[in-house]
Amino acid sequence: MANKIRMGMVGGGSGAFIGAVHRTAAEMTGDIELAAGAFSSDAVASRAFGVELGLQASRSYGTFAEMFAKEANLPQDERIQCVSIVTPNDSHADISCAALAAGFHVICDKPLAGHLEDAIRIEDAVTDSGLLFGLTHTYTGYPLVIEARERIAAGEIGDVRRVAVSYLQDWLSRDEDTKANKQAIWRSDPARTGESGAFADIGTHAFNLVEFTTGLRITEVAAELRTVIPGRAIDDDGAAMFHLSNGASGLLSASQVCSGAVNALRIEIYGDSGSICWAQEEPNTMTIRHRGQPDQVFRPGANVGYLSDAAIAVCRTPAGHPEGYIEAFANLYAGFARAVRDYPAQNGTGCASVADGIATMRFIRAALTSSRNQSAWTKLASG
Amino acid sequence: MANKIRMGMVGGGSGAFIGAVHRTAAEMTGDIELAAGAFSSDAVASRAFGVELGLQASRSYGTFAEMFAKEANLPQDERIQCVSIVTPNDSHADISCAALAAGFHVICDKPLAGHLEDAIRIEDAVTDSGLLFGLTHTYTGYPLVIEARERIAAGEIGDVRRVAVSYLQDWLSRDEDTKANKQAIWRSDPARTGESGAFADIGTHAFNLVEFTTGLRITEVAAELRTVIPGRAIDDDGAAMFHLSNGASGLLSASQVCSGAVNALRIEIYGDSGSICWAQEEPNTMTIRHRGQPDQVFRPGANVGYLSDAAIAVCRTPAGHPEGYIEAFANLYAGFARAVRDYPAQNGTGCASVADGIATMRFIRAALTSSRNQSAWTKLASG
Amino acid sequence: MANKIRMGMVGGGSGAFIGAVHRTAAEMTGDIELAAGAFSSDAVASRAFGVELGLQASRSYGTFAEMFAKEANLPQDERIQCVSIVTPNDSHADISCAALAAGFHVICDKPLAGHLEDAIRIEDAVTDSGLLFGLTHTYTGYPLVIEARERIAAGEIGDVRRVAVSYLQDWLSRDEDTKANKQAIWRSDPARTGESGAFADIGTHAFNLVEFTTGLRITEVAAELRTVIPGRAIDDDGAAMFHLSNGASGLLSASQVCSGAVNALRIEIYGDSGSICWAQEEPNTMTIRHRGQPDQVFRPGANVGYLSDAAIAVCRTPAGHPEGYIEAFANLYAGFARAVRDYPAQNGTGCASVADGIATMRFIRAALTSSRNQSAWTKLASG
Amino acid sequence: MANKIRMGMVGGGSGAFIGAVHRTAAEMTGDIELAAGAFSSDAVASRAFGVELGLQASRSYGTFAEMFAKEANLPQDERIQCVSIVTPNDSHADISCAALAAGFHVICDKPLAGHLEDAIRIEDAVTDSGLLFGLTHTYTGYPLVIEARERIAAGEIGDVRRVAVSYLQDWLSRDEDTKANKQAIWRSDPARTGESGAFADIGTHAFNLVEFTTGLRITEVAAELRTVIPGRAIDDDGAAMFHLSNGASGLLSASQVCSGAVNALRIEIYGDSGSICWAQEEPNTMTIRHRGQPDQVFRPGANVGYLSDAAIAVCRTPAGHPEGYIEAFANLYAGFARAVRDYPAQNGTGCASVADGIATMRFIRAALTSSRNQSAWTKLASG
Repeated sequence: MANKIRMGMVGGGSGAFIGAVHRTAAEMTGDIELAAGAFSSDAVASRAFGVELGLQASRSYGTFAEMFAKEANLPQDERIQCVSIVTPNDSHADISCAALAAGFHVICDKPLAGHLEDAIRIEDAVTDSGLLFGLTHTYTGYPLVIEARERIAAGEIGDVRRVAVSYLQDWLSRDEDTKANKQAIWRSDPARTGESGAFADIGTHAFNLVEFTTGLRITEVAAELRTVIPGRAIDDDGAAMFHLSNGASGLLSASQVCSGAVNALRIEIYGDSGSICWAQEEPNTMTIRHRGQPDQVFRPGANVGYLSDAAIAVCRTPAGHPEGYIEAFANLYAGFARAVRDYPAQNGTGCASVADGIATMRFIRAALTSSRNQSAWTKLASG
Repeated sequence: MANKIRMGMVGGGSGAFIGAVHRTAAEMTGDIELAAGAFSSDAVASRAFGVELGLQASRSYGTFAEMFAKEANLPQDERIQCVSIVTPNDSHADISCAALAAGFHVICDKPLAGHLEDAIRIEDAVTDSGLLFGLTHTYTGYPLVIEARERIAAGEIGDVRRVAVSYLQDWLSRDEDTKANKQAIWRSDPARTGESGAFADIGTHAFNLVEFTTGLRITEVAAELRTVIPGRAIDDDGAAMFHLSNGASGLLSASQVCSGAVNALRIEIYGDSGSICWAQEEPNTMTIRHRGQPDQVFRPGANVGYLSDAAIAVCRTPAGHPEGYIEAFANLYAGFARAVRDYPAQNGTGCASVADGIATMRFIRAALTSSRNQSAWTKLASG
Repeated sequence: MANKIRMGMVGGGSGAFIGAVHRTAAEMTGDIELAAGAFSSDAVASRAFGVELGLQASRSYGTFAEMFAKEANLPQDERIQCVSIVTPNDSHADISCAALAAGFHVICDKPLAGHLEDAIRIEDAVTDSGLLFGLTHTYTGYPLVIEARERIAAGEIGDVRRVAVSYLQDWLSRDEDTKANKQAIWRSDPARTGESGAFADIGTHAFNLVEFTTGLRITEVAAELRTVIPGRAIDDDGAAMFHLSNGASGLLSASQVCSGAVNALRIEIYGDSGSICWAQEEPNTMTIRHRGQPDQVFRPGANVGYLSDAAIAVCRTPAGHPEGYIEAFANLYAGFARAVRDYPAQNGTGCASVADGIATMRFIRAALTSSRNQSAWTKLASG
Repeated sequence: MANKIRMGMVGGGSGAFIGAVHRTAAEMTGDIELAAGAFSSDAVASRAFGVELGLQASRSYGTFAEMFAKEANLPQDERIQCVSIVTPNDSHADISCAALAAGFHVICDKPLAGHLEDAIRIEDAVTDSGLLFGLTHTYTGYPLVIEARERIAAGEIGDVRRVAVSYLQDWLSRDEDTKANKQAIWRSDPARTGESGAFADIGTHAFNLVEFTTGLRITEVAAELRTVIPGRAIDDDGAAMFHLSNGASGLLSASQVCSGAVNALRIEIYGDSGSICWAQEEPNTMTIRHRGQPDQVFRPGANVGYLSDAAIAVCRTPAGHPEGYIEAFANLYAGFARAVRDYPAQNGTGCASVADGIATMRFIRAALTSSRNQSAWTKLASG
């Protein structure tokens, strides 16, 4: 339909997991149309894949540079309005900067970049262009994560005292895992994933979830990153103690070698008058506990009167109709599409911001520094 | 994109819950395009809503009859290929028969019709036309429901002995509920919902889930249907004992007046060597128990090696990324879209068949008969 | 210690499951002393077992008749004050009547008797003697079951509309189970268990739990009892629809052949303003739901301010320290011991009463009658 | 009964929580008799309480010194055989040493002492006397904790890689909590609780649970202990990273100020081929996960064939009959009673050993040292 937001994609070619999720999520919004793409570093494969997806051959590009150049020359009501970047981390900066320079808004998979310095380049480009930039920290798209943020902001659990967040997986738990699987190979290659492995890939989700829900900043860490599987060039497991900007303490762990853990992101936030617990694998429940009261189990739903407006706004169905990961992802895309429509107003994209992404990169840097320094407490450098 | 299946919709206008779900589900497949529609019994509202959805004004029709007539006159590669019917039950037969007569495949919301006789009219029209007909019993689109069916068929729990299925809700638990809410008003009006209320609306889901998972037929029932809220013209609560075609016994309950139950569809199937339990509100787990063994908790995922091919085929994401209600619905639409492409081959639509739908109508009829006859055991008339 | 209540036991010899539980439960109260016993129908074995338990040889009797006669002749401050009966069902009446006639209070394992007529004999003997009689329907000893009763009585879920109770096990799911296991043999022998098998053994628990928690009477049933394993002389599986005294409806199932079900007693009670769910295998949580509110999960504990006095009174430990089956059983014994101390005041024993037991026997009788009569609705004969 | 183990108790007077639990647990074994006691530091109250419990007046002592002296002079078959110490931490050493010197075996509540030096005094006294010493780290009495140990030892999850253990409570979450409650006052008073608060009271349980289940030693910690509530003299919250003797890493947290956490002890152990998770508040389930397999949920029960002999040995009832905290405690007492009977054979007491207790004290010391030293990695001094 003519009036959808036109999007170009970079990356996400044949066999890529996250690219397909981005496309489905964008499609699910009913508000975004995939209009162009450069899907692979192999130009021939890239063009073929675009056609396979149903794109016009003329807009199935061989490279992102070609796409940006040619699309910029199309009439304004035909050319893409935004770019979705779903490539390995170390290319995020170059592609983002090129897209922004060509005048396209950017929505980018996490983490923001492979290295802090690249992330800062992106930040500068966003500032210079005045264009929109959204980072897809998926888990903040879940209604109950938004509800947690709203309730904590409203004081429901009082001042935060202690946080526990863990993100554990097992898909890299064996030596061969990083040798056979396309997804795994680049994630364990410093040249493509950047300065960190597990901490960059999933530790940043855990970090972002803490800051998103509590509204606090993680100010310093005492961390230990490890390479459990011999021979890997990068961390595949790690943990940290951390301090929050209000003086609270917390524990964070991120591992891709914990056998039996599938995609186990879990957060518990304890305040002086209550606590909140949420786990990604059962995202349709969130438990709030107050001392001396029955536990309360919250559920999402577009008709659930006890939820905040912000949570209700991202529910598609009435209570009792579970929504999941793709819906959470689609909520990010829906917010981003609205922001594109509203531009040049800048009311937020519904995604993590470039500043949030910079914070995750400073977290990785501080964790690595701490880890190399016998887990000494290390401050996250300020912006 | 040019090569998507072109679909017309009947019903699902402004404010309708299930129509929007059908559209999102169809969109999510990436394989279906909403190309036309007659969304409301008010022709002006119908046309306006189509335009609002982004349809061409010329294909936003005032009535389904107009749509079928005009679409049939469009070139073959432009006109709709199938019709999605999301109107109140009592109109399913007329619309289905008209669509089939005009040469369009039909995918229709459950229950099949308001009355058994109407359902048989549809069955005849399907037979006569040789076209495809899919009935959206949503819950059979969940990967783990399909896994349950596959495992039971493979003998994992042995011969079924006892089944318990319940579908309990509370959205009609108060007198005013059927007076204010558009969805509720027609569901409690025999002129629109047909011969039954709660049993037709959700009891048929429970019935279908039993037959789908066990591969057995429910052959007779001893039922009691009630109207709990005084003044309602139709059942809002009921239960039945039933017999299965292999001699097993079961209990079924369906109620829309059980306060605190949201959308609580739950099934337990006990065999002579094991049992399976699944509940819709936490659809990403299914428990299988064998005597003297640890319970086993199954989870879906496109990469989960222990699942059957049939279950894996309807998973979009790897394990640990929850999928929900809309995905289950989209799985039905994806199957239907494939069937449309494959037509005239008839390899099933991925949805319930018209025969399945007839069975649910015979169940309603038998339950009502039993209930009027002091819960006497009553056979489901054979086809 | 000198001031404990002195108890004699009948049954519960070597290898008996429930006898040992009764003894541990009585011991756990700190208020009851096992002072005598006749543990087996084999007089030699009986005496030997008493000595093995640490009883004086002179009070390790060969038969219950001997025990009652000799104990009655001991000085009042030495002789037993009450008798615990843990024999197969069909002997409950003779032993109870003899104990009461000899002047001893009785606490008896469920079900009350093998046949309704025997149960009525017990009722008459209780009335005639004016002594105490407690029936150990264990599950009513759980704090949260008591809390459910208190909250329903206080109107928390409004008028009860629908109840679902099921008690499913698998320990008799194979033919050989009733041929090898001492417990199983008598339970499947009509000469010892009485007129019913599974319905008497566990269906009565389910029945009692409904009446206990709702405060309502089950007035009529439409039931089907079956013998799933060929060759058994008695029901091993069954289900019923039922009506409650306030007009509500319910479903009850009881089976000992459901593979994978261990000791799965579960009750759900739906009212017009809320619902309660509790399951025996996780007895330390009870969920209360109100439409449009978060689910509430209750937990027991002696320091839990939100619980009723009646529930707190049966908690031994603060919240977070799980108590289980033996504690529930001990709560019955503690109540019975207090009643013995308070006698001749008659303020209840904390156990089910003989009238409650009669009701369970009328339930069995009505269910059998209904089942033989094509599941026709059958009233429970009034007392 | 004449042949029970005769036990004297020190502490546990009126209103004490843990003393009553010890007595019920001992009673529940059916193998231990409370024969004497010195229950309070107030001699008059002490004697009165003994009588209230049903002890002979002559064995209701005013002080533990009096008890040890007088009991030692009783005939061997009358005098107490062991002493249960349930006083505040800082008195454990003096009482233990006096009991051992007087020839009595000792079972003592955790933590072993208030200070490491006192703990070493106890260790020396145990060595010198050759008598039995059992430390009641309750949670190791749960069947499924024992099962976890057995399975890890048998290699079921492979080499341990990462452990997460947390023990969070909220009963001291408010300033007034340590001012009004007898239990809380001494626990927050360094003169009675010793060098640590929350870490000593519950952190030691978490520590012990890690070592017990994994069979590994915690070798060093990087810790941060805090006093969250201003004005308290001791830690009420803290966390640590730790290393295990096989090179694995872990996180431990212990807090008594986490609102909404009741008695939330939880452990997750990840190995290279599987993982185990157990939580104390639902102790009757343990989950084992292997990559690419359904989760397995284990349940205890005396008849559960898949459990290890060691786990079955501490189950009282068949599967499906939940056992809880008091049963776990009673399992420790039952093991200790057996050890007393077997003495001078030394086959373990079923409780934690004095060496285990020393390890917990070294952990506290190392955690405090680390915490004072900017969370520097600090080795647990070897024995």
